[in-house]
Amino acid sequence: MKWAQPIAVTLRTMRTLSTLVTCHARHRRMLIRFAGLGLGAASFTTIFAASSNNTNVVDPSYDASKFMAEPVTPRSTLIKDKDDMKVKMELFIMKIQAEFCRALENEEDPSKKFFVDRWTRSEGGGGVTCVIQDGKTFEKAGVNVSVVHGVLPVDAVRQMKARGKDLVGKELPFFAAGISSVIHPSNPHVPTVHFNYRYFEVTQENGEKMWWFGGGTDLTPYYLVEEDVRHFHSTLKKACDSHDRGYYQKFKKWCDDYFMVSHRNERRGVGGIFFDDFDGKSSEDCFEFVKSCAESVIPSYVPLVNKHRNDPYTSAERDWQLLRRGRYVEFNLVYDRGTKFGLYTPGARIESILMSLPVYAKWEYMHSPPDGTPEAKLTEILKNPKEWI
Amino acid sequence: MKWAQPIAVTLRTMRTLSTLVTCHARHRRMLIRFAGLGLGAASFTTIFAASSNNTNVVDPSYDASKFMAEPVTPRSTLIKDKDDMKVKMELFIMKIQAEFCRALENEEDPSKKFFVDRWTRSEGGGGVTCVIQDGKTFEKAGVNVSVVHGVLPVDAVRQMKARGKDLVGKELPFFAAGISSVIHPSNPHVPTVHFNYRYFEVTQENGEKMWWFGGGTDLTPYYLVEEDVRHFHSTLKKACDSHDRGYYQKFKKWCDDYFMVSHRNERRGVGGIFFDDFDGKSSEDCFEFVKSCAESVIPSYVPLVNKHRNDPYTSAERDWQLLRRGRYVEFNLVYDRGTKFGLYTPGARIESILMSLPVYAKWEYMHSPPDGTPEAKLTEILKNPKEWI
Repeated sequence: MKWAQPIAVTLRTMRTLSTLVTCHARHRRMLIRFAGLGLGAASFTTIFAASSNNTNVVDPSYDASKFMAEPVTPRSTLIKDKDDMKVKMELFIMKIQAEFCRALENEEDPSKKFFVDRWTRSEGGGGVTCVIQDGKTFEKAGVNVSVVHGVLPVDAVRQMKARGKDLVGKELPFFAAGISSVIHPSNPHVPTVHFNYRYFEVTQENGEKMWWFGGGTDLTPYYLVEEDVRHFHSTLKKACDSHDRGYYQKFKKWCDDYFMVSHRNERRGVGGIFFDDFDGKSSEDCFEFVKSCAESVIPSYVPLVNKHRNDPYTSAERDWQLLRRGRYVEFNLVYDRGTKFGLYTPGARIESILMSLPVYAKWEYMHSPPDGTPEAKLTEILKNPKEWI
Repeated sequence: MKWAQPIAVTLRTMRTLSTLVTCHARHRRMLIRFAGLGLGAASFTTIFAASSNNTNVVDPSYDASKFMAEPVTPRSTLIKDKDDMKVKMELFIMKIQAEFCRALENEEDPSKKFFVDRWTRSEGGGGVTCVIQDGKTFEKAGVNVSVVHGVLPVDAVRQMKARGKDLVGKELPFFAAGISSVIHPSNPHVPTVHFNYRYFEVTQENGEKMWWFGGGTDLTPYYLVEEDVRHFHSTLKKACDSHDRGYYQKFKKWCDDYFMVSHRNERRGVGGIFFDDFDGKSSEDCFEFVKSCAESVIPSYVPLVNKHRNDPYTSAERDWQLLRRGRYVEFNLVYDRGTKFGLYTPGARIESILMSLPVYAKWEYMHSPPDGTPEAKLTEILKNPKEWI
């Protein structure tokens, strides 16, 4: 295994980080842990270069030095097919992952860094999962990139068809590259954020290739600070407006409709934007829009973390946070198509899918916040979403 | 509302118990709480009798005095149709509910009694939900009876069809009476138990009436005590054997197959018995078998509570219990057909369905117990179920 040569490596950074390389093969699983060696994400590229006998391949269009780990697709393919949307999306989500992880680390205790888990999928492709658990600011923060390909089974096709894609065939060759993240902060006054941006290609039985983008960013506060919600929505709107003045309204409503816990008749949060089957314009235009959305995550969210991460809070407020996290679990396990798509895809990496679940969640029989409390104020908004800008 | 006349009531028992009567109407919800009045379950019958102008209706076949609350179906119907299986099942599950609740209360701090919530469903029927939360022995214990009827929507029909019932029609008149219970003890050395016994009638579009029973009892320990698991399985086997020597093996395997968290490739516990679409013999014979199963819950489980409820435990053991409860939540929300049937049934009482969820649950990224630990020993059994007797 070419990964197992850490000694030859030049340590380009000294950030303390555990990097776990997980190789799934059909009948075995290899875990090679570079723990406590001070191997940072940046140095990972060097490991790869030094050990792959590929050191002559250098291209200015490709710079993985700031990624959390080496991309999933081999370096030579990334360079050769640099104009292919599959490659562009993979490199973009690797970049967004690294930027977001670093922005979050800036809000965290300096001794707590993302744990980086690079994995491969025996059926095709792999991913990079970055997790902070039990941090001071972040009880759990997960940022996952996956780049997978192979054949799409019937159950997964059904999840896609339900989203409006009327695909022809039962088992279809597919490619999917996406970034997905859920941040569960420790302090109940810091909201949870989720974002996910993805690119799909599917080849139908008649040979026709289809492609589309999907994604969204949504906020789940435990206590409503209207000014914060306006900041969040305004930042997303700005990203949308630079492409089409109609996008924000359309995708804001889609978000309110999608993140619905139907059996409770409430949304999981105060929304944001959500879209799917996005293929109206050229793939270049669509990609530019998705880039703007993904690049708006840090400015929309990280200032809220910074503002509230040291707010004082009571055990009753912590309790309410856990009850709301219970509802988050209900949405993710009962309704979320992304989760279902993952659970039905053979060889899917369960830990990377369910990393979206909080460390702790709580359920109480017949819990209902008393009228006039901040908890009731939030609940009211979850039942009746409003326009924020 | 005839319930709102507590003053006229003779207090037949003085057990302190809050009884909450919830009447759902299409556009309003009335909560009438008899709290802190010392109104016990037994006195409830008296309330009903004293206020329903029905005091002349007395029948020795009908004794609701020991139930947790008045049955769902009006007393006059229960007496008139006493030979109808719908009535027999309703009275039986009301009896089982009361017996199980009292057996659990005997293991609990004497000041902690079941909270009794009697509710009606505007679309037809209702139920009685009994809950203990934050007890000394039971972190959460829920025992729910529901007796509902009306028209079954497409999504709910689909849940039933998937269980092998190939029903003709899309919206079908139905009747369902069932008891369902999940007990989450405080002490990690006391296992969780779940049982559910139900009776269905569905009338197809061609007028043909179908009926069947279903149910099961299964155990979810956090730490494996083989002798306890053998006791549990032996008690269920005895109940099965008294009806058919082949039932236990068949329904034990069905249980192992059903309570499967597929995406983790592990069962949620050490199994028990499970069956569905049970209609092979006469409905009387089937009912007698279901009775034996339901009556075996107390002797199979309560001795384990009594044995372990005061066992010492560490915070690491508590943590493991919460992680396993996370898996329990995964099963219930992703796979359990009973939960899905509930979530898709209009007017379903969500709190009575999701009362099966634990107070606290936990998820950790990539948690895996070290080899040779008691936690690993349990995990091994969950991946490879065995024969216990």
